[in-house]
Amino acid sequence: MDPKTYLDNHRQQRIDELFEFLRFPSVSARSEHKEDVRKCAEWLNKHLNKIGLDSQVMPTAGHPVVYASRLNPKNKTTILYYGHYDVQPVEPLDLWKSPPFEPVVKDGYIYARGATDDKGQLFTHVKGLEAFLASGQDLPVNVKLLIEGEEESGGENIVEFVNQNADRLKADIIVVSDSSMFDKNQPAVTFGLRGVAFVEVKIIGPDRDLHSGGFGGSVPNPINVLSRIIASMHDDDGRILIDGFYDDVKPISDWEKKQLDKLPFDKDKYLAKVGCKGLHGEKGYTVFEQIWSRPTLDVNGITGGYQGEGGKTIIPSWASAKITMRLVPDQEPEDISRKIEAHILAHCPDYVECEIVKHGGAGSVSVPTEGPWLEAAARAIETGFGIKPVFMKEGGSIPVVAAFKSILGLDTLLLGWGQNDDNAHSPNEKFSLQDFDRGCYASLALVEELSKVEV
Amino acid sequence: MDPKTYLDNHRQQRIDELFEFLRFPSVSARSEHKEDVRKCAEWLNKHLNKIGLDSQVMPTAGHPVVYASRLNPKNKTTILYYGHYDVQPVEPLDLWKSPPFEPVVKDGYIYARGATDDKGQLFTHVKGLEAFLASGQDLPVNVKLLIEGEEESGGENIVEFVNQNADRLKADIIVVSDSSMFDKNQPAVTFGLRGVAFVEVKIIGPDRDLHSGGFGGSVPNPINVLSRIIASMHDDDGRILIDGFYDDVKPISDWEKKQLDKLPFDKDKYLAKVGCKGLHGEKGYTVFEQIWSRPTLDVNGITGGYQGEGGKTIIPSWASAKITMRLVPDQEPEDISRKIEAHILAHCPDYVECEIVKHGGAGSVSVPTEGPWLEAAARAIETGFGIKPVFMKEGGSIPVVAAFKSILGLDTLLLGWGQNDDNAHSPNEKFSLQDFDRGCYASLALVEELSKVEV
Repeated sequence: MDPKTYLDNHRQQRIDELFEFLRFPSVSARSEHKEDVRKCAEWLNKHLNKIGLDSQVMPTAGHPVVYASRLNPKNKTTILYYGHYDVQPVEPLDLWKSPPFEPVVKDGYIYARGATDDKGQLFTHVKGLEAFLASGQDLPVNVKLLIEGEEESGGENIVEFVNQNADRLKADIIVVSDSSMFDKNQPAVTFGLRGVAFVEVKIIGPDRDLHSGGFGGSVPNPINVLSRIIASMHDDDGRILIDGFYDDVKPISDWEKKQLDKLPFDKDKYLAKVGCKGLHGEKGYTVFEQIWSRPTLDVNGITGGYQGEGGKTIIPSWASAKITMRLVPDQEPEDISRKIEAHILAHCPDYVECEIVKHGGAGSVSVPTEGPWLEAAARAIETGFGIKPVFMKEGGSIPVVAAFKSILGLDTLLLGWGQNDDNAHSPNEKFSLQDFDRGCYASLALVEELSKVEV
Repeated sequence: MDPKTYLDNHRQQRIDELFEFLRFPSVSARSEHKEDVRKCAEWLNKHLNKIGLDSQVMPTAGHPVVYASRLNPKNKTTILYYGHYDVQPVEPLDLWKSPPFEPVVKDGYIYARGATDDKGQLFTHVKGLEAFLASGQDLPVNVKLLIEGEEESGGENIVEFVNQNADRLKADIIVVSDSSMFDKNQPAVTFGLRGVAFVEVKIIGPDRDLHSGGFGGSVPNPINVLSRIIASMHDDDGRILIDGFYDDVKPISDWEKKQLDKLPFDKDKYLAKVGCKGLHGEKGYTVFEQIWSRPTLDVNGITGGYQGEGGKTIIPSWASAKITMRLVPDQEPEDISRKIEAHILAHCPDYVECEIVKHGGAGSVSVPTEGPWLEAAARAIETGFGIKPVFMKEGGSIPVVAAFKSILGLDTLLLGWGQNDDNAHSPNEKFSLQDFDRGCYASLALVEELSKVEV
């Protein structure tokens, strides 16, 4: 029996197994679920051993990592799969139409917490590998699986783990399925992620709130000052005015522009999706370029003075803002943080005090568009889905993918099988049963395609 | 016995009586003190009747008003005194060095809640009138006393009361002692108050918080938009850029400039008082002109997006700000609110929604500097304090004083006997025993001086 026939013949079995996996309430952010998270790791570990991988549960400072491999000296290529077995919290529970840890199939979708993010997507690769091993063939590539348990709780332990196990994790390419297709029935290969830099700024005027009648007109108002600083960061065309901000930004390549221009865009649908009266972005770029290929600066929160009902006639003592910038190649988070700091200090008048905290960031991620990996992934997806994938990018950051590049020197293929409206972090999370199936076939094809890449 | 001798001979008695007045916890803002407020009004009413006035407790929709008068057809001039018998809450109680409603004298100061604001200051006029009546002379003027019980809880009932009793309250001049001297040992006549206008603005972008990675660059950020709107309201010299804002502002008169220039100003002391690194105000004006004679615009509070610890990479759905403007003659609150509304709408891009709420305001107050009243008050203060008063203004607003002008058509003499550091709304409120004394003598002299003014 060849691997594809094995997949054909075991459809119900892999759904049943996924349901077993989904029944663990492996909510990493909630301490009351610590034991459930551990049990989920152990189930996964046992399952990976059962299908023929060499798997173990490895401790971290937080929830454990499941690490599995199957290595054959004959194979030239090594794939490192990354995924996570932990899930988001389920609150608000009363909005769920069926219990989050009792998976059901309805209208062609699997409903359960973790269905798409990431148990279901991860499981397609487990089943793809199993199809090879169960069919009596050995794998044509070496495989390593790194499956963490705190992706949803912002743990930094995975980066530490990668650092500590850099030799063990050596590979040629990384595969992650933890995102979405471009659209329903339109699979995609994601060839880039934006990075992020995060700073906080606090402007301090008087050492306490002052009466705005008694003192207004003579003392600096930190909210007015902060507003002027924030306003100084963009021009009317949405371009960022921080000195040197664009120095390392490359022009969008012809290939990239061509890929993005191919994607259908309906302004009215997009407006409805974001719920805005109008759009506003950097002039001279399409929306896909604005959200994927161009850097941004957004204030995520601002606070200062009296915020309750009614009024309070004060000049507040201070005001502060949280600011993140989304970065593109080759902007570096530390460099950009230094540049915004310099901008703030240059625009901050000397009659107030200014405190700036530069938080860590994450670099952007680019999958080389000219090497063999993207094309191999695209062929595998076309085989699995029966649809040619598009090439797209993602505006958010996946810090661990940036860490794979910086620590291991490896590129990552981002092959999302989910859909944008899968409710990944909301009640009634779902995953298309058809996409689960097609993902398994695509995973199988991916192993074959990647084994043919010259490394 | 003449009135002055009566004051000389009854020093301890008037302190004892003030202490009785101070022992009532007449905290108007706390419903648990409603009965204490009523008892305080009744004590005051009884006291005013005892000294020879015709006093009554009159209901309002909130706490009652104490209204007293003594009218003699022979007198040409009528003085209306305004004050309040309610006090601020006492919290935080643990910071009080002696119980707030057990008055004590220490180092020449009376310590108690209400000592300066306003029971102590109000009581100087009660004792000044008593000195006349007890000495066997009748008063050379008609007097009316309007003493309210919810000045400290922002009640609007007093304005309604004034409206309903406009005929009863007819007078020639109003006297209020509920503020501070220019400095210790430097009494003052306050010849103007700034007005106030208050608006709230809310900018709405997406209909919910959006992921700043997924959408950043394509949708408007309400915090960035609001900051630009706020920044558009001032130029670098601190001048307000709202169209027509200064249209009705009169140049500072030579007389006023001369009075303010006479007042000593020490920049370092002022900086220490406001606790700021530096000062910032409208270029071309002194600090006294900035805080008393020029209009201002201050954001009192701003809020939007994520304000907790750490970061949250969102484009917030909305951001809002509370903005007050301090007004000078002849700016009208309604007109100024309309002008800032027009400015905000003109500066608000059409890709966001904008909600503006115009709250009520209060007009500025000017005591005519050329009529006889200011000079009469100045002579009385010099008699009572033995020190020539300065002429100053106050940057805050006293809405009831603006209402006296608009409803009754009457000017108000603002004769504060307090000191800036009396802790009027803080723990350990105090009132100088010497100023209490000097205030009584000044009040006595004021009756005589005002009786001589041609009306």
